[in-house]
Amino acid sequence: MLVPGLIERKRAGGHLAPDEWRAVITSYTADGVPDYQMAALLMAVAFVGLDDAELDALTDAMLGSGARLAFGDGTPPRVDKHSTGGVGDKTSLLLAPLVASCGAAVPMISGRGLGHTGGTLDKLEAIPGFRTALSLAEARRQVERIGCAMLGQTAEIVPADRKLYALRNATATIDSVPLIAASIMSKKLAEGLSGLVLDIKRGSGAFLPDLAQGLFLARTMIALGARRGCPTVALCTAMDRPLGHACGNALETEEALVGLKGEAPPDLQAVTLALGVEMLLAAGVTDDRAAARARLEAALRSGAAADKARALIEAQGGNPAVVDDPAVLPQAPRTEPWRVPRAGFVQRVEPRAIGGAIVAMGGGRITLDQEIDPAVGFVITGKPGDRVERGQAVATIHGRDDAGLAIGRAALDGAITVGDEPPADVLPLVPHRVTGEGPGEGPS
Amino acid sequence: MLVPGLIERKRAGGHLAPDEWRAVITSYTADGVPDYQMAALLMAVAFVGLDDAELDALTDAMLGSGARLAFGDGTPPRVDKHSTGGVGDKTSLLLAPLVASCGAAVPMISGRGLGHTGGTLDKLEAIPGFRTALSLAEARRQVERIGCAMLGQTAEIVPADRKLYALRNATATIDSVPLIAASIMSKKLAEGLSGLVLDIKRGSGAFLPDLAQGLFLARTMIALGARRGCPTVALCTAMDRPLGHACGNALETEEALVGLKGEAPPDLQAVTLALGVEMLLAAGVTDDRAAARARLEAALRSGAAADKARALIEAQGGNPAVVDDPAVLPQAPRTEPWRVPRAGFVQRVEPRAIGGAIVAMGGGRITLDQEIDPAVGFVITGKPGDRVERGQAVATIHGRDDAGLAIGRAALDGAITVGDEPPADVLPLVPHRVTGEGPGEGPS
Repeated sequence: MLVPGLIERKRAGGHLAPDEWRAVITSYTADGVPDYQMAALLMAVAFVGLDDAELDALTDAMLGSGARLAFGDGTPPRVDKHSTGGVGDKTSLLLAPLVASCGAAVPMISGRGLGHTGGTLDKLEAIPGFRTALSLAEARRQVERIGCAMLGQTAEIVPADRKLYALRNATATIDSVPLIAASIMSKKLAEGLSGLVLDIKRGSGAFLPDLAQGLFLARTMIALGARRGCPTVALCTAMDRPLGHACGNALETEEALVGLKGEAPPDLQAVTLALGVEMLLAAGVTDDRAAARARLEAALRSGAAADKARALIEAQGGNPAVVDDPAVLPQAPRTEPWRVPRAGFVQRVEPRAIGGAIVAMGGGRITLDQEIDPAVGFVITGKPGDRVERGQAVATIHGRDDAGLAIGRAALDGAITVGDEPPADVLPLVPHRVTGEGPGEGPS
Repeated sequence: MLVPGLIERKRAGGHLAPDEWRAVITSYTADGVPDYQMAALLMAVAFVGLDDAELDALTDAMLGSGARLAFGDGTPPRVDKHSTGGVGDKTSLLLAPLVASCGAAVPMISGRGLGHTGGTLDKLEAIPGFRTALSLAEARRQVERIGCAMLGQTAEIVPADRKLYALRNATATIDSVPLIAASIMSKKLAEGLSGLVLDIKRGSGAFLPDLAQGLFLARTMIALGARRGCPTVALCTAMDRPLGHACGNALETEEALVGLKGEAPPDLQAVTLALGVEMLLAAGVTDDRAAARARLEAALRSGAAADKARALIEAQGGNPAVVDDPAVLPQAPRTEPWRVPRAGFVQRVEPRAIGGAIVAMGGGRITLDQEIDPAVGFVITGKPGDRVERGQAVATIHGRDDAGLAIGRAALDGAITVGDEPPADVLPLVPHRVTGEGPGEGPS
């Protein structure tokens, strides 16, 4: 295989054949093609893009580099949700047990927090004893037994992606739509899904703040899923402010567990239900949107969702008492309220500043090998548009020490602004639903 | 230094500051920045380009990675010629001694053949004993003593370029105008020149067959040379057919040595004189074009140019008898005439096919570590536009064995075409002269 010739062709705007993508990915995964050639090829892809046949071939080649979850005939339909990442986004912790309690199976493979965005694995591991490093065989058995499993990417699943992701991270080719799509979809296809729901975050705290890019990514993944036998649908959801109140790993876990009893903050509950409805529809549990919603609400009310969370936590070695007693979670030694400096209307709660402060306080990471402190973070009850009095507490900082509190204070001083009039530009919570058919639908 | 951030900025169409280029090149040369990051950065440059300040900074950083030739005050003005490469282009072998015999000093650092284009070092090394691996100190002393030296790039000169070139070769970023310009000009500036003449080859056998790209490269290097104190001018010359008759290392050396006595084929003599005039003007030996030409013609006639060649060859360990006795050069064991299959006019003599055949016959290389057979090649006396009779011999194949002759025969069968009418699209020999002032001049 003459790799420079392949790079040259892609650089010139041409296409690699499916066999060529398979050969180059197979060889790269086996340390044949060197990093510098793959880095050049990825950068050319970042400029030129991939056509459908190439995207399919790249995704298939990555998928084929590892093992897949394979379920028996008797297993309920499988569905997963993937978010492009945000601040305060703990919907995965709610949705896996909630949707599993409604008759779909959820084999959910998640990631860790990086930069200003959090990660589901870190939140789960805030629960004492919770083990996310399941083998594929363990995950399959657990899904067949209790209907859900929440695990991290293992060495078995799409090894090509782990190598490619590390390279992209070192060479500024992370935010290329076809490379993102192939990375996400190869892992999701390895889960043996019947359907997939994407949560495309929009707004300043999103990985791709630009709406057009987010929609392009959504449509690329929806089309790829359809071509690969995994019906996929996407919701755009607001990430111009954190979702819910809690930001920080243990704090978010606590909020999610409270939410499984139907007591989530309204925005978190609304986004969770919107995504849950799509998951039940995608799984084919029902084809009636209202019935799906009623079923989810009933599971929250009846305790079925909380029961499923207890079963999930217990199955993965965690202490299930956490569902009823948040004190089981790690607690930050220091807390301090944060008060608005003037009366008026909350204008903005800037998610990147909040996420960045959590990293600085030790609760997040810049590189994937960093340890994190799960207890630190914020509970921010103030939302854009809220009317506030001077000195009113709209947030609590949870810090390790004085330095941590000081970082948190400075971050909130910058992130939360108050003005005379209600802000005009707050995004609707679920502004778009995107399917493979026609343009995205308007606010719903 | 956060290299991914620099790559990201360049990818987004931004600029790196001079300090950033210096830091990244210095670190890369010292094996700090890894190949995969440099590969991604170079690919981003290939797409986005460099502005003048960046090109200056990159060139300076590369130049600063090694040593330079430094001449004493008494040395005549130094001038060199750089060609973008072609088939049958042996002008360097003529110009170094010829121009040196006319009062300018020529410290000429050349390369090896690669792909379909030949290289001056390979042609020189066809002369028994000729040593091209001079140290900078040797080269300087020789230039001061006899007025010229012809050597290869040493470990001392622009080490950054040798590393970058190997990486570009492996990652399909060779043909990026700013990267070509920085590579060539950093090496030329290291020669301590007073002026530089570029020979931009045009036509199907050129490295950049597209005229617009060739002119863009010429203008980029001319402007860079001017900003760096090395007045630079360019001639475009025809490479839609081989230059002269001989193609292949020893055969070209023989033709060049004959040419130093004024007996070169007309096209080779014309291009050599055109470039020689520019070199004498660039060196400031004279500012009169006609005087420069007369001086060169006199040196060919008087034997001064051939004498200088003898001195040069002797100084570098070669057998100077070669100037008068071509039998000193390696001879191919087998020769065979090639005859046109019909009467008419020669339409094309396709240089890439000729160059490719020389590689296949063992006289060239695809990768820089390959050994070559200096004796093989072609002498092609037929030129586009020549009237020929059926069965007329217009070329001789010089091969190692039957297989080599067969390759040569097949190549000429495809490369040389004969038609009823004279061809309409033969390029003028020296179609453009390009300076920093205004657009390139028309055919001259």
